[in-house]
Amino acid sequence: MRNAIAAVGGPPIFERPLQIVRPVFPDANKFLAPFQAALASGQVTNGGYWVLEFERQLSEYLGVPTLVFCNGQMALMTMLRAAGIERGEVIVPSFTFAATPHAVRWCGAEPVFADVAADGSWCLDPDDVERKITPKTVAILGVDAYGIACDYTRLTEIGRRNGLRVIFDSAPSFGTRVGGRLVGGFGDAQMFSFHATKAFTTMEGGCLCTHDPELFARAKAIRNFGQLADGDCDEAGINAKLTEVCALIGIEQLKSFEQAALTRRRAVARMREGLSKLPGLTLASAPPDQDPIWLYLPVFVDEREFGLDRDDVAAALARENLYVRKYYSPPCHHMRAYAASHEISLPRSEASAFSVLALPVYNDMTEDECDGIVQAFLEVHHAAPRVKRAFG
Amino acid sequence: MRNAIAAVGGPPIFERPLQIVRPVFPDANKFLAPFQAALASGQVTNGGYWVLEFERQLSEYLGVPTLVFCNGQMALMTMLRAAGIERGEVIVPSFTFAATPHAVRWCGAEPVFADVAADGSWCLDPDDVERKITPKTVAILGVDAYGIACDYTRLTEIGRRNGLRVIFDSAPSFGTRVGGRLVGGFGDAQMFSFHATKAFTTMEGGCLCTHDPELFARAKAIRNFGQLADGDCDEAGINAKLTEVCALIGIEQLKSFEQAALTRRRAVARMREGLSKLPGLTLASAPPDQDPIWLYLPVFVDEREFGLDRDDVAAALARENLYVRKYYSPPCHHMRAYAASHEISLPRSEASAFSVLALPVYNDMTEDECDGIVQAFLEVHHAAPRVKRAFG
Repeated sequence: MRNAIAAVGGPPIFERPLQIVRPVFPDANKFLAPFQAALASGQVTNGGYWVLEFERQLSEYLGVPTLVFCNGQMALMTMLRAAGIERGEVIVPSFTFAATPHAVRWCGAEPVFADVAADGSWCLDPDDVERKITPKTVAILGVDAYGIACDYTRLTEIGRRNGLRVIFDSAPSFGTRVGGRLVGGFGDAQMFSFHATKAFTTMEGGCLCTHDPELFARAKAIRNFGQLADGDCDEAGINAKLTEVCALIGIEQLKSFEQAALTRRRAVARMREGLSKLPGLTLASAPPDQDPIWLYLPVFVDEREFGLDRDDVAAALARENLYVRKYYSPPCHHMRAYAASHEISLPRSEASAFSVLALPVYNDMTEDECDGIVQAFLEVHHAAPRVKRAFG
Repeated sequence: MRNAIAAVGGPPIFERPLQIVRPVFPDANKFLAPFQAALASGQVTNGGYWVLEFERQLSEYLGVPTLVFCNGQMALMTMLRAAGIERGEVIVPSFTFAATPHAVRWCGAEPVFADVAADGSWCLDPDDVERKITPKTVAILGVDAYGIACDYTRLTEIGRRNGLRVIFDSAPSFGTRVGGRLVGGFGDAQMFSFHATKAFTTMEGGCLCTHDPELFARAKAIRNFGQLADGDCDEAGINAKLTEVCALIGIEQLKSFEQAALTRRRAVARMREGLSKLPGLTLASAPPDQDPIWLYLPVFVDEREFGLDRDDVAAALARENLYVRKYYSPPCHHMRAYAASHEISLPRSEASAFSVLALPVYNDMTEDECDGIVQAFLEVHHAAPRVKRAFG
């Protein structure tokens, strides 16, 4: 035990910084030969051999036809457009990364923000979604916050009943299971990000999954400028093609992903066990039939009970070499880009955004690291009055 | 000399296929160590060391502040949005790759198509641009067809006089020189594609160049979801970030690019010399103060004089293992995506689109290949009547 925590002059708990993400990539030698062959042949993109093989493996793994993209945001914009979104309103959570409403706007529609549920999932509240439906609504875009799947069943039921598209921004949740089944095939379509911050990463990348052959074909055309076989374009597409090297990395990552998922879930269980003993901390919890991949472990800080507010906790943890983040803050409806939504009230989103800390979860997290994180919270809590004075 | 050309039963001129592009990439060993270090550190994207270094080298090489992007289309969409394009009309050529009008539409504006000039450059006709200006016009988006720079001076002058943004889709023209100076710093902004089809390639990639610090800052924010330092977003951005491995390849490519440019120009001069002796072929020509990079060498076929129409020439050349392409055909204003423009008349764009063949130009093209291409045209021309009968 230290005499003092780092915020008041003691040595940090962690010798080396624990960043918010610690991506794990295969050694380049694992895919060097096919990568060199791709460079030598010049076939480095545009649906090359490894992109097609990666798509085949993903489709098999997820159990749903899958297209890969250069990044998650392009998969998201393509998904929206392929679902026919060109105008009108799309209901989205505000408590999410800004990519979600941004994609809606790029597609010519306007995001309408709904609140998150009170069930501890911090995902879209189906009741509030239903209240936000207007004659202009064209789609519900659910988000899997932190990798926790939103309520696919109820959101889909509400969408079907109202004649709306139901699509899921599952950027953080590749590997999450609902009822034992990997997510990917829910709603009209679902997309994932393979960005370096994600549990499953190809450096940059993403994919779109759908059982709807028409949406699939349209997304495939949009990904390559909207070009059809005859050289004509039905609609304005983009370039959202993945390179062979990213596909090669993805194929390697798939081999070790189940093990990585297990490590992440064990790490979260261990941190949850320790952190739940502290007063003033609320941890997100998945519905009982779910096994999220846990992109991060979100913790909500009650200033009165914990003894420090969220910002002071983050600052004190940084002194311990533990770099947590304030995801998702500010809530999207408070951003300058969405000025028209500043007046709406989303009490749970607002309270969450101003009390949340996202804790790191790594594919190769050790038990010592989990215990160190718990210990850091514990000691910061115990030293709260001194920290408060130190931060003045 | 063969007894018969391939279209009527002879052996093909080329033993192995000459595809429309033949990208040249560095051997992976040239950048393996830093790539492995990036994978090991997890710093593989998001403005990593090599992306910043690549941007520094590009800015120096082109003589204008430069931002890199995951692909050319994202650079183009970002350029339009960073120039303030959100609605209204943007004047573009129709005789271009569809990416140009597509990007305009994704930004919420509508492309208004103008004809190409009669000067042999096959680029936007400034006179027609001036005729197409309406009170709704917000920008002129010139395109450097085949790597030939459009008339920057006159287009900029027209734009300035009419209070319009003047931006250039220079996707194909990285390496083109105007008045001895590398293009990149013209107009309000200019972008290039580094796609595998381009003379300068990073597999997928692109860049945006501008001397306007405000446009630069806005583009930089848009590239990373519109995020500003405080976590807020002023506007809806996208993810358009380049990976470290693409930047590493770009840095290698820069080392040999001047040599590649020389090879391309010599190849075009050699093919031009040979092809100009044949009747019924018109070759694009750059204005006298220009040195285009020549993405392709466009040849326009006059059916009566050459003895065969464009489609038959392409088919006969394919039998010779020479795979030319019908770029840019159909013209954009005839595409189903631009149905509202079907009725407009752009005589030069239409005639060009239906008579053009794009011939390959490689970074490592040999004199034998150039001579073989000329010979193929020559023999197809001489055998025109027999080819016509054979193709029925």
